[in-house]
Amino acid sequence: MSDVVSLLGQIEDTGRDTRGPGYQRPGFSATERELRDWFLAEADRRGLDTEIDANGITWAWVTAPGEKAVVTGSHLDSVPGGGAFDGPLGVASALAAVDELQGSGALEAATRPLALAVFPEEEGSRFGVACLGSRLITGAIDADRALGLTDANGDTFADVARGYGLDPERIGADPARLAGIGSFIELHVEQGIGLAGTDQAVAIGTSIIGHGRWHFAFAGQGNHAGTTPMSHRADPVVAASRVIGDVPTLAAATDTRAVATVGRTLIHPGGTNVIASGMSFWLDIRHEDDAVVDRVLDAITTRAREHAAETGVSVSISQESYSPTTRFTAELNDRLRSVLPGAPMLPSGAGHDAGILAPHLPSAMLYVRNPTGVSHAPEEACEDDDARAGVAALVSVLENELGVPTTGGAASHPASRADEPGQADTSAGGLR
Amino acid sequence: MSDVVSLLGQIEDTGRDTRGPGYQRPGFSATERELRDWFLAEADRRGLDTEIDANGITWAWVTAPGEKAVVTGSHLDSVPGGGAFDGPLGVASALAAVDELQGSGALEAATRPLALAVFPEEEGSRFGVACLGSRLITGAIDADRALGLTDANGDTFADVARGYGLDPERIGADPARLAGIGSFIELHVEQGIGLAGTDQAVAIGTSIIGHGRWHFAFAGQGNHAGTTPMSHRADPVVAASRVIGDVPTLAAATDTRAVATVGRTLIHPGGTNVIASGMSFWLDIRHEDDAVVDRVLDAITTRAREHAAETGVSVSISQESYSPTTRFTAELNDRLRSVLPGAPMLPSGAGHDAGILAPHLPSAMLYVRNPTGVSHAPEEACEDDDARAGVAALVSVLENELGVPTTGGAASHPASRADEPGQADTSAGGLR
Repeated sequence: MSDVVSLLGQIEDTGRDTRGPGYQRPGFSATERELRDWFLAEADRRGLDTEIDANGITWAWVTAPGEKAVVTGSHLDSVPGGGAFDGPLGVASALAAVDELQGSGALEAATRPLALAVFPEEEGSRFGVACLGSRLITGAIDADRALGLTDANGDTFADVARGYGLDPERIGADPARLAGIGSFIELHVEQGIGLAGTDQAVAIGTSIIGHGRWHFAFAGQGNHAGTTPMSHRADPVVAASRVIGDVPTLAAATDTRAVATVGRTLIHPGGTNVIASGMSFWLDIRHEDDAVVDRVLDAITTRAREHAAETGVSVSISQESYSPTTRFTAELNDRLRSVLPGAPMLPSGAGHDAGILAPHLPSAMLYVRNPTGVSHAPEEACEDDDARAGVAALVSVLENELGVPTTGGAASHPASRADEPGQADTSAGGLR
Repeated sequence: MSDVVSLLGQIEDTGRDTRGPGYQRPGFSATERELRDWFLAEADRRGLDTEIDANGITWAWVTAPGEKAVVTGSHLDSVPGGGAFDGPLGVASALAAVDELQGSGALEAATRPLALAVFPEEEGSRFGVACLGSRLITGAIDADRALGLTDANGDTFADVARGYGLDPERIGADPARLAGIGSFIELHVEQGIGLAGTDQAVAIGTSIIGHGRWHFAFAGQGNHAGTTPMSHRADPVVAASRVIGDVPTLAAATDTRAVATVGRTLIHPGGTNVIASGMSFWLDIRHEDDAVVDRVLDAITTRAREHAAETGVSVSISQESYSPTTRFTAELNDRLRSVLPGAPMLPSGAGHDAGILAPHLPSAMLYVRNPTGVSHAPEEACEDDDARAGVAALVSVLENELGVPTTGGAASHPASRADEPGQADTSAGGLR
């Protein structure tokens, strides 16, 4: 039986960012493939039947496939410079949960099949569309549109998928496979400060707030930085930068809970002594009320057109992806609350594959405390005891879904702070 | 005898930018080497003795080396997305001038040696320091500092130079070689609108206005774009973008003739759904009065510290290069004016190797009309007849420096507009 902490330790050196701290694990890259192969080997060691489906999702059957399968898993790719837990914590916890269930003999009494799933390109760091694997299998993204997406090197998803061993002709919605899943539970490190500083190590997800990505492209006149008077310029870098500088103010003025971010830009041609001919940026906006997302976008679009006009450049704006607010399945969440009655209920500002699956099948999420509240950065954190509490909570949820008696997994790893023994007892009881 | 237009035609497909129009010819790259090899082959075809010196500068001796050599040439590298003429026009014109001088027999009477020179990494697009070859040979940059410069891939100049066939131990100032040069004349496409719309095709350079490059590095807290409230952020992209947006206003408020440009930025880690942990930009400032450059820098530095403080990020600012205003050698320019009396006298906002050499040996520049006034961009232009007028002017200047009778080279290719025959006659006379 492997501990979740030692499982994470097995991949701690895979895909380290060579430019700084953190990880570089792009979707469909050699690094993601190496992580997938690690997962396949760990599944094999546990006697699971594995397969990679037409969309690059890896499945590992703990018991024989059948109807109303209980599935748990997450992803192994990371954002550029990301942390160690976003994705891998859910995959390692799923493997550790299998160890507990196999060790206790609980699976012999299971009334439903159990499987693990690992989704590719969850972050969308490479092809710009987050949760690409779950969007493909659900048909949330059209296969032809996906195949035409290009990465920063200009390679299409079709070509990259082929190199990954997939058949582009077969990529796309797979309703039959989804119909066989009765519950999907994704465990994930918390990406905010919802649990930090509380006495709870595990929360249940309520919703994924609406979010979208837009591409702003400014075009001006490239020229020489030394010989072109300021009054003769049409500099797209100036226009785009003014918009980026205004984003926080415009978002906050619309709604204090709206978030809007520019974390990626591209300048053409990008020389120190060259007035650029073009600059793009990607805008990420999120709010639980989709109407607020629209209003933030409207405000930024209006400002972008104003700055472009003042600067003498043009701007074109296109939507790259959009997901309205998704609420997790109420009946499934009621069952999670019945086995984890003390766990807080948290909305998430981050997108997840469970959110893409939720409109198609019963889906839920467990969040594990992150003491820094930081994510998508090397400072993302999860204490060992909290990771073990997450596994215990996941085991309890899986046992309940599978219709088997509880093994006390959650009780043996209380979800509360390990350094507060009095509370640990209370909380452990509360986990039932 | 090759025409300058057909010489340029020989390299028009070398190093084309695959991402858009224009060229990608980085310093010390395979493309620059291909262009250098083209120059070596053309020199060889004309019977010139060639050598590549310790700093990667290519020399081609038209007549036997000796004291007070007359040298002409330019560079073959380009900025990213640059035009066809910035650099290559001067090299092709030098070869075409040799053809005229060899064809007329003028060299037999020459009292001084004649050589061509091609300088590497003039744009500084790869290692950040413009005119790297001429800075090295003059000692304007310390060899150890240069060897430690890194390109975008993290490769050091020492490693790249070794791969180019140079010995890093031998790179550095070469006063003996410079002492053998009596005059350096660089012909270059004009990079502004000084000649566009006038009846003159060729101007004489007066000075290179002061210019410098500074690196601004902002550091904040990387985090998740969806889960971090706007009020909890320390986003370096917001701070840096606000500064970039203010650059034109601050430059214009200081002096209407100052130019300040940001054409290159770098975000770490650079994901759409990631609040960045760092953002850098490179600032280029130019003005003929060095005190004005300082004042523009001060204004932008102050503003950068203000925006950083408001945003909760840190900023560090470092100078990458600085060249005060350089005036070309008065005595040499007097001789140029004596053979090109009708040519306008123009200052240049662009840096050139001739400007780096000027403090060390008599140096001068000829500018050839650019009808668009655009440079460092694909729209950079030079009409065929103007290019031929440039060669004619260069031949006249070289003949005068070499102490040989004029061959009428300039008269056969009048410097004025070809479509204004009346003026062409006047101007041709005026070129003497």
